[in-house]
Amino acid sequence: MASKDGYSWTKADGLRPGIPCIGAIQPPSNVKDVQEYDVIVVGAGYSGLTAARDASVAGLKVLLLEARDRIGGRSWSSNIEGYPYEMGGTWVYWGQATVWREIARYGMQDDLEISYDFSRGINKFLLASAHGTQDFTHEQEDALMESALCKLVNIDGTHGRDTIPYPHSGILNPQARKYDYVSVADRLAEIKHQLTPNERLCAEAFILLCSGATLETTSFYEFLHWWALCGYSYEGCINHLVKYKFKGGQSSFAIRFFGEALASGNLSYAFNQPVASVKDSSSGVAVTTRTGQTFKARRMISAMPLNVLADVKFEPPLSKGREAAAKTGHVNQTVKVHAEISDRDLRSFTGISYPHNNLIYGFGDGETPKGNTHVVAFGGQHNHFHPEDSIERTIEAFKGFAPMNVERVVFHNWSRDEFAKGAWFFSAPGLLADHLKDMRDRHGNIFFSCSDWALGWRSFIDGAIEEGGRAAAAVRADLLGRAKI
Amino acid sequence: MASKDGYSWTKADGLRPGIPCIGAIQPPSNVKDVQEYDVIVVGAGYSGLTAARDASVAGLKVLLLEARDRIGGRSWSSNIEGYPYEMGGTWVYWGQATVWREIARYGMQDDLEISYDFSRGINKFLLASAHGTQDFTHEQEDALMESALCKLVNIDGTHGRDTIPYPHSGILNPQARKYDYVSVADRLAEIKHQLTPNERLCAEAFILLCSGATLETTSFYEFLHWWALCGYSYEGCINHLVKYKFKGGQSSFAIRFFGEALASGNLSYAFNQPVASVKDSSSGVAVTTRTGQTFKARRMISAMPLNVLADVKFEPPLSKGREAAAKTGHVNQTVKVHAEISDRDLRSFTGISYPHNNLIYGFGDGETPKGNTHVVAFGGQHNHFHPEDSIERTIEAFKGFAPMNVERVVFHNWSRDEFAKGAWFFSAPGLLADHLKDMRDRHGNIFFSCSDWALGWRSFIDGAIEEGGRAAAAVRADLLGRAKI
Repeated sequence: MASKDGYSWTKADGLRPGIPCIGAIQPPSNVKDVQEYDVIVVGAGYSGLTAARDASVAGLKVLLLEARDRIGGRSWSSNIEGYPYEMGGTWVYWGQATVWREIARYGMQDDLEISYDFSRGINKFLLASAHGTQDFTHEQEDALMESALCKLVNIDGTHGRDTIPYPHSGILNPQARKYDYVSVADRLAEIKHQLTPNERLCAEAFILLCSGATLETTSFYEFLHWWALCGYSYEGCINHLVKYKFKGGQSSFAIRFFGEALASGNLSYAFNQPVASVKDSSSGVAVTTRTGQTFKARRMISAMPLNVLADVKFEPPLSKGREAAAKTGHVNQTVKVHAEISDRDLRSFTGISYPHNNLIYGFGDGETPKGNTHVVAFGGQHNHFHPEDSIERTIEAFKGFAPMNVERVVFHNWSRDEFAKGAWFFSAPGLLADHLKDMRDRHGNIFFSCSDWALGWRSFIDGAIEEGGRAAAAVRADLLGRAKI
Repeated sequence: MASKDGYSWTKADGLRPGIPCIGAIQPPSNVKDVQEYDVIVVGAGYSGLTAARDASVAGLKVLLLEARDRIGGRSWSSNIEGYPYEMGGTWVYWGQATVWREIARYGMQDDLEISYDFSRGINKFLLASAHGTQDFTHEQEDALMESALCKLVNIDGTHGRDTIPYPHSGILNPQARKYDYVSVADRLAEIKHQLTPNERLCAEAFILLCSGATLETTSFYEFLHWWALCGYSYEGCINHLVKYKFKGGQSSFAIRFFGEALASGNLSYAFNQPVASVKDSSSGVAVTTRTGQTFKARRMISAMPLNVLADVKFEPPLSKGREAAAKTGHVNQTVKVHAEISDRDLRSFTGISYPHNNLIYGFGDGETPKGNTHVVAFGGQHNHFHPEDSIERTIEAFKGFAPMNVERVVFHNWSRDEFAKGAWFFSAPGLLADHLKDMRDRHGNIFFSCSDWALGWRSFIDGAIEEGGRAAAAVRADLLGRAKI
């Protein structure tokens, strides 16, 4: 199976759109006769998958509509020559509760591996700036990052613990609200005399890795929120953000949700069906796709990302607050690119290449079956580029970390993806303080479910599953005529 | 509502058995006519509650049988004068995935509070040994505990990271197996020259707080496993083990599971129904209670603790491995006692009183509505005692931390509880290496679900929910005729 999404490049084959994916679903639809559903779920990312699964397992008749040819939304993997490349959301940790609950429930605890391998090779942290490259041990890297980030977040003498004591609460306390109107650039200006030049490079690069934006467009609160969720330490960040991934790739996880929903006998689905308009009335919701088909249900769960919400016509229109949030959008334009390289020693490198390079953050992420090193690297709005426009430039950006021989490049360009318009959620100053509640509210018979407005691990697969669970529970409670489940 | 479980004491009322509990269910049974169920769940702790909920929501006809008059098993709370005292499992954290998933799904993120409050009062760590009491700041306490525990767990130069890289895996690697045959006493003997006297006191007291056993009967691997789950740091231990609790008490959480199951319309239940025997055959399972009633189902989920499994007659008999595990049992005989004291300044104390005292570990855990301090304290097999046998001795044990004026004592004696025979699971050397798989295996039509053999947060509420989810999924898959969900 293959998806139309994604790109791969090798010297032999050149650049090719579309890559293999076990999450591409065949047949693309199982819709037979016209019927009225209990709930239509729009979007088959983890949020929509979870909502569709929970609702169908609980006995509701569900229709899942998806614009793409595959499940997973902004998290999907491509197996190429027996090795999984992750196009979007990748890592999981048991501090990400809803995702880990699923891993335990599906018995996939032994299907994980650790991204890093510092047991052989160069075993260095390479810090490349415009002035050249310095190298450090990984212990030095950890100390530098910890020191830099602790200075950044230490607004309260407790490294954020007092400011965000309950990172899963939907209520931003006054301090947190204040910092949501502050950009990371503002905060860095405040502490500019406290940071060594290397600490500043590391802090900025790490934040841009998280936000995929610029320092000016990155909410300081939202970064603090990640930090709090990670347990207020740099080691916590590594554990939660980049440590464990699926041996078989994210799509091997996503298909479990889809399979369970399908096995309930209550799931209808149709892929390649972008939604054009949604009409809600007292009698239910009518969802019309771009192909002109209309489907009806008692309730709808919108599991589309914030950045594409404005592309669907809602009647009655979205609330002013949600409309404003959708118009503002989130700011993450992460460029995530994979390279298969023949340099085996680089398996144990980590690197920052900033501020001059197109790719900011990279590291050895695995070993391919033929013994090559797999490197993953990230850029964003800072020096933004489209990898497919010039593979030469893309390869040059990899070489911005260290000399390497690139044999393959694989990626998904989220910025040009009309069904995502960006990577994982990250907010500019003010969006959350002004509109988090708006984004979460119910709208008539429509429930909005997306990692972009999750309370806990917003932006993460975990937030998507949190939201999908919330939406399915709310629809069930609603249809059963009770306020709460 | 009140449970027959638990004790309370005040000077005015003396010692009284039975305390209020919102998890005591009325009416105690809703069983009407004789029917054959899809599944009988025995035990209404979190594991049984989760299994019953997941199965009933998914459309299976479920009968939940419970020996007690209440839900929650080894985790339940008693509201006395508007304040919740936790009789067993208390704290939750987002690193405990399955429990946190439920908190998010039930929208209870704002129903939590932090146990500690170091903002006022004496703000001291009191370390009482047979030679007198030293006091420290909480920063000094953290440094002392971190140093002591890091020396204890540093068997691999990476503080356990290399030994237990995947703490949720069910497969103990050779190093982990080796350490499961080692007791903490053995390990302490190995490093006796590395620990300062204070570090040794702190390490021993902390381990006994975790295991409720003796140093000789505490598996070193199982302690390492907790440490790994906590993210390999002392701050991680505090976050995961004692930081966040429910403002309304554990029973306010447990009733959500029960309520959701009941609302499915598929749940029958009967409390005060200890099970005497279970007969499994190709036609299904017959479960007979001590009152002589027999209930039948296609499958059964046993959600009883390890230490009481041998009290039920199984036909055919349990596997040799499970029988051996049940006979060995786990070793945790934690004595958990609450005191309401009039000393407001002690709200911010933490204390160790060891090895001479009956209570080893205590701290200010809250403020009661009348402004008194709530202190929680723990003892175990080391200097074991039964709090109800002499309230004077119990109060003396509290005073082993600091002088205090005790106005109320509340507790549940888990050691004399015939349906628990101990507190949360903790294993003596060898049990897990020899029998973890045995305890988890299916037995004909019977699935065994209990935190005592969870893979991740074994011993915790989280492990119970992990297990309940696993069991319900397995029964569903089985009845639907598929190997996997």
